[in-house]
Amino acid sequence: MKIRRVAIDTHPENTAFLLRAGGEFAPEQFQAMRKVAIGDCTASILATLAIVDDERLLAPGEIGLGEQAFRRLGLPDGAEVSVRQAPPPHSLEFVRRKIDGDTLEDAEIGEIIRDIVAYRYSPMEIGAFLVACAGFMTTQETLALTRAMADAGRRLHWPPGAIVDKHCIGGIPGNRTSMIVVPIVAAHGLVMPKTSSRAITSPSGTADTMEVLASVDLSAAKLKAVVEREHAVLAWGGRVNLSPADDILISVERPLRIDTFDQMVASILSKKLAAGSTHLLIDIPVGPTAKVRSQAEAVRLRKLFEYVGRKLGLILDIVFTDGSQPVGRGVGPVLEARDVMAVLRNDPAAPADLRERALMLAGRVLEFDPDLEGGAGLARARVLLESGAALAAMERIIDAQGRRAVAPELGALEYDVRADQRGSVAAIDCHLIARIARAAGAPMDKGAGIDLLRKVGDRVLQGDVLFRIHAESAAGLAFARELAAASPAYSVAT
Amino acid sequence: MKIRRVAIDTHPENTAFLLRAGGEFAPEQFQAMRKVAIGDCTASILATLAIVDDERLLAPGEIGLGEQAFRRLGLPDGAEVSVRQAPPPHSLEFVRRKIDGDTLEDAEIGEIIRDIVAYRYSPMEIGAFLVACAGFMTTQETLALTRAMADAGRRLHWPPGAIVDKHCIGGIPGNRTSMIVVPIVAAHGLVMPKTSSRAITSPSGTADTMEVLASVDLSAAKLKAVVEREHAVLAWGGRVNLSPADDILISVERPLRIDTFDQMVASILSKKLAAGSTHLLIDIPVGPTAKVRSQAEAVRLRKLFEYVGRKLGLILDIVFTDGSQPVGRGVGPVLEARDVMAVLRNDPAAPADLRERALMLAGRVLEFDPDLEGGAGLARARVLLESGAALAAMERIIDAQGRRAVAPELGALEYDVRADQRGSVAAIDCHLIARIARAAGAPMDKGAGIDLLRKVGDRVLQGDVLFRIHAESAAGLAFARELAAASPAYSVAT
Repeated sequence: MKIRRVAIDTHPENTAFLLRAGGEFAPEQFQAMRKVAIGDCTASILATLAIVDDERLLAPGEIGLGEQAFRRLGLPDGAEVSVRQAPPPHSLEFVRRKIDGDTLEDAEIGEIIRDIVAYRYSPMEIGAFLVACAGFMTTQETLALTRAMADAGRRLHWPPGAIVDKHCIGGIPGNRTSMIVVPIVAAHGLVMPKTSSRAITSPSGTADTMEVLASVDLSAAKLKAVVEREHAVLAWGGRVNLSPADDILISVERPLRIDTFDQMVASILSKKLAAGSTHLLIDIPVGPTAKVRSQAEAVRLRKLFEYVGRKLGLILDIVFTDGSQPVGRGVGPVLEARDVMAVLRNDPAAPADLRERALMLAGRVLEFDPDLEGGAGLARARVLLESGAALAAMERIIDAQGRRAVAPELGALEYDVRADQRGSVAAIDCHLIARIARAAGAPMDKGAGIDLLRKVGDRVLQGDVLFRIHAESAAGLAFARELAAASPAYSVAT
Repeated sequence: MKIRRVAIDTHPENTAFLLRAGGEFAPEQFQAMRKVAIGDCTASILATLAIVDDERLLAPGEIGLGEQAFRRLGLPDGAEVSVRQAPPPHSLEFVRRKIDGDTLEDAEIGEIIRDIVAYRYSPMEIGAFLVACAGFMTTQETLALTRAMADAGRRLHWPPGAIVDKHCIGGIPGNRTSMIVVPIVAAHGLVMPKTSSRAITSPSGTADTMEVLASVDLSAAKLKAVVEREHAVLAWGGRVNLSPADDILISVERPLRIDTFDQMVASILSKKLAAGSTHLLIDIPVGPTAKVRSQAEAVRLRKLFEYVGRKLGLILDIVFTDGSQPVGRGVGPVLEARDVMAVLRNDPAAPADLRERALMLAGRVLEFDPDLEGGAGLARARVLLESGAALAAMERIIDAQGRRAVAPELGALEYDVRADQRGSVAAIDCHLIARIARAAGAPMDKGAGIDLLRKVGDRVLQGDVLFRIHAESAAGLAFARELAAASPAYSVAT
């Protein structure tokens, strides 16, 4: 059959189109051909089949390919291909055994991940694997999953020596410490090639906030060049294809909101392994509305990180931090970038909690330096920040990545949420603050977000502003206002 | 926006098509709009969105609907509708809690099933629910699932009195006892409206085999009319929309091959409840290649049936049968119909195992008759069969449903699989026999299948025919031969 490109985008699924009355297949064969293999001797893909009844879309003898399937197959329009019923990938047998409660071997998990990265699984099949894993996984399975995910994409290689990194498991709005830690560590001279994700369910990821200041969409070559010159980088990891299995699994985990410790450890450590890290600081915020809600849970997660990290040859330091309320004042790309630069500039008005937390984390990363006296990390970090060395390093990193000619501005539409009684702020719901900021438009609208004018423990009078919503669009402002009115994010105790 | 019907069939998913450059939505909105709600004040559906880049397919201001979405929405081409991002169904929260290991309340399971039947779940989300349930379910959850499934579709109502039924959990090729039990019971005078499925993974379902003799695709009204006249019917259940949730769940269970006891009990009892049964005999074959492989498993399944059945007010009788080898000689619609009619005609050459098993089951169904002396069921069943009363009842049922004018014939292409040594048949693999018969073309090709010329215990010489493959197409014959050569379905012990 001949390929015909069909201008329909069915991301993330490959779709192929076949004429019902084309004569190539009997009606009952279509039933068995939910999934087809299409290709020639050089390339082949699997696709889900849609049946077409309109000869204006497809001629007999043609197989239509949606945009994504066409791109992934990589053959020219009109190329001659064979089309046949695709047998389900053999590794689905392992998924079925996992559903039945079996424990899988390393090689079996490796085959599942390779098939997923080759787009041989439908979202339904990926979901089945993830849900079965969410039921029960041994630490050995988590290790095998991490290794298989790291092996399935590109790996970055660096000259010998310590390659340090830090990662926060997330969940705390405004917790933008990486953009302070990286320039401090770079100023010290350690190599810290930090790749970050964009926001998935949060109002901003490190990549989204850094993008307010500089380009983050760097090729692998460009990324290496920046690190060679400045010891560090703050780039978007998506571009360099580190652990593509992670990106695919996340695309299914997100709608199902699967967020187990096993998946978290495999996701984080596979990305770090692929990025070539040797030393890694992991920040686990603990709080009633954070991802980890108790000390006992935090210890369980730490042990899983330690087990898998050690087996992979990573040197880990794990720190529990206060996850009881948002960090800093700004939530959303422009607002967070404002706070970060205020800390780096030693602005007296900069949020003290963000500064102290970043210094503590930078100090622990500096402790990875064998030449530094044990326990001297925090003091060294403070010197590098207060001397302006960290700010200078940040400016150099921004220039090396490509400074934004016109910086995005804070959203001009505002709405103030005020205290309805006097008292003191007893709690701020991290989850709700994140949802309101997203409703306002963050991270797509860089200037949208929330400015937290009061933090836990602050005294307020009735009518005082608790937080200010910023938006770029009237719809975003209205949506955020509505959500803020429906569910109070602040509790004020009298 | 205006509806435009698009001649693309994406069963089982609803698909909507939107022009990328249509001006109605900003590019970043598409990302959030994987699923959209489309409708007016009278009707509304959810659909997965595909993005179109070709204005010949869609004009700006139009929303394309695939065949299935168009049919389910039921509005005319060109109708004015609103299109908006569909919030995920609220019941997905319950699915997430189930993934996390929680036990769900009756009302929560009810909401999940109602949303599934309203096509608000994607296959991925249905898969997540099923896999989470496969991990662990309480008996109370299984009961709630069964009730919710029975409540979600049509229910048949009958005059007061016992409405008897029988059901085999399947897995044994050739085990076509229902078509013998039903006419015996009808001849006795009990009411037995038997609805059956078509084959899903087997070479023939009762509906497929009955269709060799009569029409099985009966409307609810026609089905009732047949039962009124003949006390019984042997119809395809799919037409009357009993437990549509079951059909949807099975479409996801099949590719994932989820086959837990909980799903089996919920599937069977929800269908029987919806069909209005009051008394039900369940046949559980036990054998090394059957669905239930040990006595201990069979007891566990029986207890689950008993618990759920009692809570639903069904009177159950559960019987364990020999599932060590296929029953009768023929496997496939035409061959099985031949065996069934031979038993009903009291043909001395009819397979004795099929006859005796059907008599035993019919006897136990007759025990449901309060007017029959306890223990007299089997003798009564034998009288009804041997007197020709059962055959006469079957002929009346066939005529009432609509006798096939031209009966399908046995596939003319044959291939004999022979013993490669002398000895006695030690075992026959039910699973492999089913796969070979399907490869030959059954149940789509009614005349395709397998004729078992030897059974377990029979003595054979080298070169004797063990079984004969029948096919209607050369491809089917070749495929079945290949499979039979690769994996021997018979073991012959010397």
